[in-house]
Amino acid sequence: MHRKVSDAVIRRLPRYYRQLALLEEEDVRKISSLALSGLMNITASQIRQDLNCFGGFGQQGYGYNVAELRHHIAHILGLTRQYRMIVVGAGNIGQALSHYANFTSEGYDVLALFDTDPALIGRTFGQAEVLDGAGLAEYLSAHEVDIAAITVPAGAALSVAKLCADGGIRALWNFAPVDIVLPGVAVENAQLTDGLMALTYRLCDLKAEEEPDEGQGTDTKVE
Amino acid sequence: MHRKVSDAVIRRLPRYYRQLALLEEEDVRKISSLALSGLMNITASQIRQDLNCFGGFGQQGYGYNVAELRHHIAHILGLTRQYRMIVVGAGNIGQALSHYANFTSEGYDVLALFDTDPALIGRTFGQAEVLDGAGLAEYLSAHEVDIAAITVPAGAALSVAKLCADGGIRALWNFAPVDIVLPGVAVENAQLTDGLMALTYRLCDLKAEEEPDEGQGTDTKVE
Repeated sequence: MHRKVSDAVIRRLPRYYRQLALLEEEDVRKISSLALSGLMNITASQIRQDLNCFGGFGQQGYGYNVAELRHHIAHILGLTRQYRMIVVGAGNIGQALSHYANFTSEGYDVLALFDTDPALIGRTFGQAEVLDGAGLAEYLSAHEVDIAAITVPAGAALSVAKLCADGGIRALWNFAPVDIVLPGVAVENAQLTDGLMALTYRLCDLKAEEEPDEGQGTDTKVE
Repeated sequence: MHRKVSDAVIRRLPRYYRQLALLEEEDVRKISSLALSGLMNITASQIRQDLNCFGGFGQQGYGYNVAELRHHIAHILGLTRQYRMIVVGAGNIGQALSHYANFTSEGYDVLALFDTDPALIGRTFGQAEVLDGAGLAEYLSAHEVDIAAITVPAGAALSVAKLCADGGIRALWNFAPVDIVLPGVAVENAQLTDGLMALTYRLCDLKAEEEPDEGQGTDTKVE
């Protein structure tokens, strides 16, 4: 069903999807790779190359059919069905995930949160209740769950991940600052500070470009 | 100061950094690319290639010096200084970011949150107070801020981003589901559902690998 595509392309697909959905809302029917490039900070040739991975939907000189392309990307991303999600760890990030309105509109249902803190058990965030973490394995034997968001502290993350995998969950959305490697399980690393570090890297890069060493001009430096 | 490296490498650097910090805590002094690979779901040859981008710190047969490599990556990522951050939008995600303990330990200080909701203005999340969003431009003219986390609704994101850029902020950590393109400003896209979509893609991929069409065997299919 899927071609093998690079991680970098997979990472850009949701951005195309969002951008096309926005264009569709604005009643834009066709768009060129060049116009899309101006909206997205991706070069037009990169856009053409990415979308060609999936068969290519553009016609030279005519641009892309917005609705068709959005629909096709939705299909590729697996967005044409509902996903049942649990959130393990009902701290700040877990609560925010459960509240986050976009989820349900995009086809993600948060069924329950889990935590071991008695002050949190029984509370409701968004539509979902916090259940006792001690009952997680039992819950998974009774409920089919597609995705677990892991928002527990680093030290607990791997054991929680294993518990989820043993309970039949094949997709982990990991916010804990540890790498999780489990055979046959898809893991998306959503560690917030990782993104922040990538940002500070690029900030340094910007400043290095603008502030060359005195007397050296603007040549790119390699040290 | 910086070499130009690909976005994919930049994205893996924080993971190396975290993993090396963990190893250093456990008093591991040297590690081979192969051992690192087992911990990180990155192939050993990819690891060697990534780290060679920055000069290469391994010695064949000896592995990497953990402390030295971690220190060097910290330097590359710009983690050897403090960053002043504001959070624009004090909803669930903004509150979670302000609370998130890792930030201060990694060198990020949240100075203030901004929101236009009178029910939020004056409240404190983590160490930072919610200020009136109407005063953002004035605040930026009086305070030097390195990074703005944007956690406002999609419709407001671009105008907030412009306000921040006009106020001298050069790095935006964007949680709003729109692409922000501003000249001379580094933008890290942290749209949560983007990560979730990449995860469902990979989940579909896993299932496709395991459940080949009847009679077709396990050949990779391209449709």
